[in-house]
Amino acid sequence: MDKRITVTVWNEYSEFQKESVVAGIYPKGLHTAIAEFLNKDKDIQAKTAVLADTEQGLPEAVLAATDVLIWWGHSMHDKVDDSIAARVINHVQQGMGIIFLHSAHKSKPFMRLLGTSGSLSWREANERTRIWTCAPEHPIAAGIPEQFVIEHEEMYGEPFGIPEPQKTVFISWFQGGNVFRSGVTFQREYGKVFYFQPGHETYPIYHHETVQKVITNAVKWAKPDVRVGALDCPNAQPLEKL
Amino acid sequence: MDKRITVTVWNEYSEFQKESVVAGIYPKGLHTAIAEFLNKDKDIQAKTAVLADTEQGLPEAVLAATDVLIWWGHSMHDKVDDSIAARVINHVQQGMGIIFLHSAHKSKPFMRLLGTSGSLSWREANERTRIWTCAPEHPIAAGIPEQFVIEHEEMYGEPFGIPEPQKTVFISWFQGGNVFRSGVTFQREYGKVFYFQPGHETYPIYHHETVQKVITNAVKWAKPDVRVGALDCPNAQPLEKL
Amino acid sequence: MDKRITVTVWNEYSEFQKESVVAGIYPKGLHTAIAEFLNKDKDIQAKTAVLADTEQGLPEAVLAATDVLIWWGHSMHDKVDDSIAARVINHVQQGMGIIFLHSAHKSKPFMRLLGTSGSLSWREANERTRIWTCAPEHPIAAGIPEQFVIEHEEMYGEPFGIPEPQKTVFISWFQGGNVFRSGVTFQREYGKVFYFQPGHETYPIYHHETVQKVITNAVKWAKPDVRVGALDCPNAQPLEKL
Amino acid sequence: MDKRITVTVWNEYSEFQKESVVAGIYPKGLHTAIAEFLNKDKDIQAKTAVLADTEQGLPEAVLAATDVLIWWGHSMHDKVDDSIAARVINHVQQGMGIIFLHSAHKSKPFMRLLGTSGSLSWREANERTRIWTCAPEHPIAAGIPEQFVIEHEEMYGEPFGIPEPQKTVFISWFQGGNVFRSGVTFQREYGKVFYFQPGHETYPIYHHETVQKVITNAVKWAKPDVRVGALDCPNAQPLEKL
Repeated sequence: MDKRITVTVWNEYSEFQKESVVAGIYPKGLHTAIAEFLNKDKDIQAKTAVLADTEQGLPEAVLAATDVLIWWGHSMHDKVDDSIAARVINHVQQGMGIIFLHSAHKSKPFMRLLGTSGSLSWREANERTRIWTCAPEHPIAAGIPEQFVIEHEEMYGEPFGIPEPQKTVFISWFQGGNVFRSGVTFQREYGKVFYFQPGHETYPIYHHETVQKVITNAVKWAKPDVRVGALDCPNAQPLEKL
Repeated sequence: MDKRITVTVWNEYSEFQKESVVAGIYPKGLHTAIAEFLNKDKDIQAKTAVLADTEQGLPEAVLAATDVLIWWGHSMHDKVDDSIAARVINHVQQGMGIIFLHSAHKSKPFMRLLGTSGSLSWREANERTRIWTCAPEHPIAAGIPEQFVIEHEEMYGEPFGIPEPQKTVFISWFQGGNVFRSGVTFQREYGKVFYFQPGHETYPIYHHETVQKVITNAVKWAKPDVRVGALDCPNAQPLEKL
Repeated sequence: MDKRITVTVWNEYSEFQKESVVAGIYPKGLHTAIAEFLNKDKDIQAKTAVLADTEQGLPEAVLAATDVLIWWGHSMHDKVDDSIAARVINHVQQGMGIIFLHSAHKSKPFMRLLGTSGSLSWREANERTRIWTCAPEHPIAAGIPEQFVIEHEEMYGEPFGIPEPQKTVFISWFQGGNVFRSGVTFQREYGKVFYFQPGHETYPIYHHETVQKVITNAVKWAKPDVRVGALDCPNAQPLEKL
Repeated sequence: MDKRITVTVWNEYSEFQKESVVAGIYPKGLHTAIAEFLNKDKDIQAKTAVLADTEQGLPEAVLAATDVLIWWGHSMHDKVDDSIAARVINHVQQGMGIIFLHSAHKSKPFMRLLGTSGSLSWREANERTRIWTCAPEHPIAAGIPEQFVIEHEEMYGEPFGIPEPQKTVFISWFQGGNVFRSGVTFQREYGKVFYFQPGHETYPIYHHETVQKVITNAVKWAKPDVRVGALDCPNAQPLEKL
């Protein structure tokens, strides 16, 4: 029996990604690049899915067979059907892990799982960012240095419209004077949630070795510990005499 | 200028509530009973709204003028429009407090703000419940005894499908052998959230003095501390030289 | 290289434990009974230590070689040296897991790690308790049923003087009308902390199979994920030009 | 009856503070400067206490009459008696609020209330810091802008040895490339805790209007909501028939 962690890397894969500078950086799409580095790990089996696929790439059978879903979206958040977003949320609640990358902070599953707006301030100015490890003991930070640099990244800044995190793993410094909680965990029912800021599509960020290591660690952290069936408000008999 | 806390008490007010034993307990509806005891407090101004009203009782202007919304629903959760649920959530995110009573644990705003199923086990068996105060220092527990009794209540039991609370204020003991986190707080963006279990509609629970005191305290706690405008991903200029 | 989780089971092992009914239940001490069931797990290597040992059983070398420390104390909390308590806390902060059992809620390491009094109400009345699993997805709850019974246990009741837990894994129902957060997790710097209520010394509770399973699970959960060296306020050079 | 919030501002007030550049900035000590701006608020009555006073400035009667204690210490943490630290902690557990400023992150009450090391990285390099408001809805952020600047401050950087905060109110950006969770809240039993980073003694930081506003807000937030007597493990009678 295959005991590898099954990952589905989902990308909206817009025309922009196919036709612009992005295609030069990720010829087969950034989802494929992410799946490729994940598949170098012997404990992970990663596949990909995109918005243009049947059932937007996320039929019931795919989600049922997925331990951890990775989500990348930006310009097409509104194209995701409410029913598909609800299906994703349902699977997270039953234990599927989910990792939201970069601009997924405004995706339907992100906002609906967290219950907040996901708002943040932003700037495209080619600036340098330093990602600081606040929780060096966390499995997501295993092998990650005290801080690392991405020379060119879009700025994402506070205030970030999220609930107080379960764990603040990373906080980023930006050259232009901003800070951002760039790596944060949550739990929603039986599913683990990780948001990770790096990954503007016009920079080769998913080719950055430390970014790859963080995402690989996050997959291992987000897989379900215990498989629990869905709860649906059972009617219960008394255990003690009434 | 009126500085009272403005409360809207919303009830689905089903035909069942109007035609059954419930009408004997709450002749003008349980929403009216709740508004009446709240209005005895000089710092609170409470109004009511029901599902049958225009825009399901929650037009934009009503929510904009509401500091704290109280929600009671059970058999008609699905009748609440998605757009109305989204409007409520939007106001909570901008600071409106919200108090979910009893069976509101399966309402659209509850599940979508918390991101979990709200599942629990239940039993209608006329049993006794003891509500224990776990956080006597919390404003919601001001003046509430160490524990108090409701002689006849529907059982709600663990596991309860919620995220780990910001604060566990009350935990209930049930005669039939169950326990339940019956008073829990959360925050979603700028809005405070309180869930309180007591209130099965066929018992006179909202006439219980201690229950009234808890709800009154919760209104005062849930009102916004600071009014913050909505954030919508502002584009930000650099503050430091790039 | 031995990759088993190293556990030290510490017990005050008072004269009372050696001379009373307790000795009939645990002829070699409850610490030995706990170590014995842990050692049935191939991934665990458990040893024991008691207050009467050299350096109260917890010399630096023992703690340095311990992944998870289990603590049982009751009548001799004050006999534990402040310096030994500080040493334990120091190791937890550097990543050693710690499991506090039953009356350890008033031990020095418990109160000093959590920063609260550990107060609770109690009663010795031979009563029945039902332990409910609130977090079935948590590794500590793996294989544990929705609820299980201990026929005779000391009552521990709310309010419990702890900070809001990281995770409320178990809540207990007591026959006499009380409730208690009987299984709760915390984190202190790099170390994981679990408190578990069952275990009054005059009942054979550590011979109860489900209790053994919970403690075994807790050991596996509490072991350090990542070994981090102690931080001691390093002086840091600027990374950017000043 | 005087309903003002009673504040005690405690300072180690070392010889260094009296004899160096610090004395030029704060001729009567920084504790006096803090008390003076607090006393401009009609709802606050602030007094001062220093290490050289009787019982290190914190006799039982002073703490019993204090709603919120403010703590500033740096070079003399070790001179604070364990018994005085324990007394402070005891009062916090019973509801007294406490605000730790700047280098108080290594004080005995800070480390013993939080259960962590308080470690951080630091640098004295006259650099600029920007303090970002992450929680604009929080009472401590009332009237505080999205970000504000302190032109010269000691750098304090992540990783910061604290438990995950109850609320991350402020995160700071430093010119030299570091970030820091500079305003964080916790609760310990019935008492509220706030840590605020600004305040290196060789800069006039407590004369900065926004810093004064944050500390004034924090006093109002940290005062006890409800006065609860100490709990001390009461023996409890059964409420239900055994």
